Amino acid sequence: MRRLINDGYNVVEEMLAGYAAANPQYVKLLEHDDRVVVSQQLSEEPRVRIIIGGGSGHEPLFLGYVGKDFADAAVVGNVNTSPSPEPCYNAVKAVDSGKGCLYLYGNYAGDVLNFDMGAELAADDGIRVETVTVKDDLISSENFEDRRGVAGDLFVFKVAAAAAAKGYDLDAVKAVAERANENTFSMGVALSSATLPVTGKEIFEMEDGDMEVGMGLHGEPGIRREKLRPADEVVEEIYSYIKEHTDLAVGDEVAVLVNGLGGLPLMDQYICYRKLNELLTTDQIAIHKSLVGNFATSMDMVGMSITLLRVDAELKELLDLPCDTPYYKA
Amino acid sequence: MRRLINDGYNVVEEMLAGYAAANPQYVKLLEHDDRVVVSQQLSEEPRVRIIIGGGSGHEPLFLGYVGKDFADAAVVGNVNTSPSPEPCYNAVKAVDSGKGCLYLYGNYAGDVLNFDMGAELAADDGIRVETVTVKDDLISSENFEDRRGVAGDLFVFKVAAAAAAKGYDLDAVKAVAERANENTFSMGVALSSATLPVTGKEIFEMEDGDMEVGMGLHGEPGIRREKLRPADEVVEEIYSYIKEHTDLAVGDEVAVLVNGLGGLPLMDQYICYRKLNELLTTDQIAIHKSLVGNFATSMDMVGMSITLLRVDAELKELLDLPCDTPYYKA
Repeated sequence: MRRLINDGYNVVEEMLAGYAAANPQYVKLLEHDDRVVVSQQLSEEPRVRIIIGGGSGHEPLFLGYVGKDFADAAVVGNVNTSPSPEPCYNAVKAVDSGKGCLYLYGNYAGDVLNFDMGAELAADDGIRVETVTVKDDLISSENFEDRRGVAGDLFVFKVAAAAAAKGYDLDAVKAVAERANENTFSMGVALSSATLPVTGKEIFEMEDGDMEVGMGLHGEPGIRREKLRPADEVVEEIYSYIKEHTDLAVGDEVAVLVNGLGGLPLMDQYICYRKLNELLTTDQIAIHKSLVGNFATSMDMVGMSITLLRVDAELKELLDLPCDTPYYKA
Repeated sequence: MRRLINDGYNVVEEMLAGYAAANPQYVKLLEHDDRVVVSQQLSEEPRVRIIIGGGSGHEPLFLGYVGKDFADAAVVGNVNTSPSPEPCYNAVKAVDSGKGCLYLYGNYAGDVLNFDMGAELAADDGIRVETVTVKDDLISSENFEDRRGVAGDLFVFKVAAAAAAKGYDLDAVKAVAERANENTFSMGVALSSATLPVTGKEIFEMEDGDMEVGMGLHGEPGIRREKLRPADEVVEEIYSYIKEHTDLAVGDEVAVLVNGLGGLPLMDQYICYRKLNELLTTDQIAIHKSLVGNFATSMDMVGMSITLLRVDAELKELLDLPCDTPYYKA
């Protein structure tokens, strides 16, 4: 095992304790529920509150995006495991300001079940909670409704949070987040597994020199495993897949995210970005802005994903709206 | 090999092309020398210019810290190799505004040689260039003058850049940067080697489950190799070493950097931070601010370092002065 931890069963508690201690200006843990990370910079004026969350092991997703004019709270599950309903509910109780809350998270069955229960508990208290589940991982299903959420989470969360910061009501925040969701397209590759803290073992076996095309953020199988190829070929394949499975077209404008899964050097991520930029330019797809780095990881997994968010004037304005969190500042 | 690259000999050029394309609002490559990354946000008023640099493979160090009110240029060498004298000189020519320039880089023989030649070439043009070599890696020598620079680079660079932004003259910028340098203390551990792009092999062998205490940023030997221990014990040893080899004392105040070397999950870094915070609190050493993340890496090396910068009122003000770069925003 190449992890620097203590007891594998305590990694989430210890991480959260460290996170709260390191970022006191941004967040605190809820006193009666340490699985809820709450912003220290909640707006004074009432507005729709943005609550994100999911399993741990994807840091800085989710907790790293709680702060000023981004997420108001994050609900934290165990490694690769949905948070339970209570913290989902407790997050609502902690941040609601009378305008309702929007849950946003990746589209996984366990998360849907537990966040929905959180929303029901909140409804009993008369607090309206709506939900947007991010569905950007093209390879996970032909049907939008069945797709999983991966690094595109970041873009959809940002759009929703900016809309809330601008004073949109709950229906309007949800609508624009759904529009971002429908226009966010991701696909990735993995060159290794991640190491589970409890077992100290890799989640699955992958030979050094192999690559899995289309692997999910928790190691969900992709479309095939093959010998590692040069970065340019990998980027070309991902970009072609995105074009074939969406209606992205000449003249569109996109925001780009080249996301490292944890163990891939930033050097390699920029080598991949270089090729992607070239392909988009050739296709006359304009780039509004680009992010390159580890935004949504799978612990120590070596790999990367590409996300394209097709933008319009409103989405651009929301993407660019200033915000301030430990791991995302605009 | 678990790297996503093309030809191993082209990694630096391709990375730089990608970096410039992804961050056009922050940087450009010099037209006649693509190993010089220049800020797009040079101050209009003349001021001391901050030029940082060194070998590649430590991203986001160095190029990631070029931008508004931080470094004005970065000089980029090959992987683990000093830049040659010409780009060091070209960087000066590109950014000098009549107030002179300060070179800042980690204290390695090759870098010293080549940056010094760059400074001599600039002197021939009548441009004054001074130098601060960062020497924070406690384990590398008992003597301050012989120590290498590791993640503490970030703090020393930031202090110097803020002093320049505040209008200090060259002597004053250098003096305060040296004061930061003398008060910056680092030590790290590595759980793996890094993978060299050209060979596709690890720089040295390290068994899974082993750890090297005190390893340098390029894999320089530490004080011993041993079986991996729990994170808390590792942090305790590092912290004890720092206390024993410096005059850090009760009542001091520090800025803290827990730095991931590339392949260590952010989760683990926060688990380490949690323990460090506990130890500092017990010792009544106040924490002014904390950074946790991959700020100075060794490509895919698994490991982390701890850096403490002992601060006073001036250093705190300089550390906190706003700046805006792709990988560091204050």
